[in-house]
Amino acid sequence: MRPTDHQNPQSLDQLVEALRCLPGVGPKSALRMAYHLLQRDRAGAQTLANALDHALQRVGHCQLCNTFSESAICPLCASSTRDKHLLCVVEMPTDLMMMELTHSYNGMYFVLMGRLSPLDGIGPKEINLDKLIKRAQDGIVNEVILATNYTNEGEATAHYISELLKSRDVSVSRIARGLPMGGEIEYVDSGTLSMALLGRKSC
Amino acid sequence: MRPTDHQNPQSLDQLVEALRCLPGVGPKSALRMAYHLLQRDRAGAQTLANALDHALQRVGHCQLCNTFSESAICPLCASSTRDKHLLCVVEMPTDLMMMELTHSYNGMYFVLMGRLSPLDGIGPKEINLDKLIKRAQDGIVNEVILATNYTNEGEATAHYISELLKSRDVSVSRIARGLPMGGEIEYVDSGTLSMALLGRKSC
Repeated sequence: MRPTDHQNPQSLDQLVEALRCLPGVGPKSALRMAYHLLQRDRAGAQTLANALDHALQRVGHCQLCNTFSESAICPLCASSTRDKHLLCVVEMPTDLMMMELTHSYNGMYFVLMGRLSPLDGIGPKEINLDKLIKRAQDGIVNEVILATNYTNEGEATAHYISELLKSRDVSVSRIARGLPMGGEIEYVDSGTLSMALLGRKSC
Repeated sequence: MRPTDHQNPQSLDQLVEALRCLPGVGPKSALRMAYHLLQRDRAGAQTLANALDHALQRVGHCQLCNTFSESAICPLCASSTRDKHLLCVVEMPTDLMMMELTHSYNGMYFVLMGRLSPLDGIGPKEINLDKLIKRAQDGIVNEVILATNYTNEGEATAHYISELLKSRDVSVSRIARGLPMGGEIEYVDSGTLSMALLGRKSC
């Protein structure tokens, strides 16, 4: 018996290695996934292979808002009923969807597809800031609303973008920070409370 | 604008749905994975699609030991230097590899590819017990060693198999239970200690 006789077949090893491209999947999870697919869900594995091929071929980015789209201009950007003067900058398509669910915004969007994160190698180029600057200076947009997350990285991203745009005389705003709906002062963290206080409005 | 204008493109939704066939991947992880693949690792996604296709085509089960194999009989079963009288039953190929790493077993294997788990819909048929019974009664095997895990499900599986085989006059044994190497009585759980006591050997 060769020393490798008890090892997994090569194509199984290759599958395990390939599964590791998924975020959050290490060697053990990848092995568990490969075993599961080959043992219990071959139909699912075939569907996954096809869906990957299909999505890779068809999904690109909207030329205007940069979100995932199967067409050059996504349906939202192509819509005639949206307010073209407002441009809301979000990190991910999920954020765009959450904004839409509020039904309180009818402007355009720009999706960064990430946030500045130097440690992960994500700089201004990876989040398409050139494209954003061009988009914000189309002569129609008159306000850019920064709706990145209130995390450290989201904050840094918003700050960076606002500096870039202000130097080009584009008017920029940032979504408000404060107590959440139903938030009780007793239970809210002090950072949020301090920001709610600093951001108080006359009434 | 139609109400669905802000939704993900269809082929992206299909990819998200397909990723959910992976164990432990829910809707949020699947979305995160799909975004990651399409945004940051298209090469990885293509490799994964190809690896899935390749593995689905090539990986089957060894006719003798039931482990994953690219050939009808796996290299270990085909080896001429192994002891054909011993048959060790394990749950998964990883368990087989761990057994091999001990270098203290030179017999044959049977890999159940699972354990009895009625709640997950895994019964005797799913873990190939018919195949095991036939394998154990080939006239050459004279001892079946049950090396399933010492979990509830592994224990139930071992018990079930031992009843099946004993009723067919096959000699069956179970790997020992007791203190692990370097185990200190002060720190070991009482279940293990009680089993170590019950399983004591004269010396």
